[in-house]
Amino acid sequence: RFTTTSADQSIDTSCLTWEGQPYQGKIAIVEKLTSLPFTKIAHSITAQDHQPTPDNCILSMVVGQLKADEDPIMGFHQSFILKNINDAWVCTNDMFRLAIHNFG
Amino acid sequence: RFTTTSADQSIDTSCLTWEGQPYQGKIAIVEKLTSLPFTKIAHSITAQDHQPTPDNCILSMVVGQLKADEDPIMGFHQSFILKNINDAWVCTNDMFRLAIHNFG
Repeated sequence: RFTTTSADQSIDTSCLTWEGQPYQGKIAIVEKLTSLPFTKIAHSITAQDHQPTPDNCILSMVVGQLKADEDPIMGFHQSFILKNINDAWVCTNDMFRLAIHNFG
Repeated sequence: RFTTTSADQSIDTSCLTWEGQPYQGKIAIVEKLTSLPFTKIAHSITAQDHQPTPDNCILSMVVGQLKADEDPIMGFHQSFILKNINDAWVCTNDMFRLAIHNFG
């Protein structure tokens, strides 16, 4: 079925760049996200921007602060693209950076 | 000519979000960028990430510092999408934020 294949293909080509480290495809991305060492995390969003892209996706950029477990509060930046496939929103691209290295 | 129309359409739908303020289309974006008050600016890039999107674009996220004229050094975050149209790279989406409000 074409529509299912299309969604699967987008998921397989999805990209996560986490602190400069690249992960591609649903399996690798889920493995990375589930291996993060904290048990609880809280986010505070300072600024968020959203735009439509020419290919009917949504581009978002978020800047804020987070607190993981008992670690110090750290700034972060995250940009991601959401694409509507078969009435579901798929995150096809995700980039995450802590700001601690830049402003610490 | 279809190819020229296609490029023009992408340029007309291009989005710039500058410190939360939206601008759409080549004319509005150029007007904003050329009205910025500084006469010289220097950038220092701390981190940059790049990914291919499912629609054959490039998504980039840049974090760094800039110095405009004699103003203090400020952090900034910028995310943008480049799309190849007729062998030219068009910036279809651009989001810019100064970090001064977040970490000042």
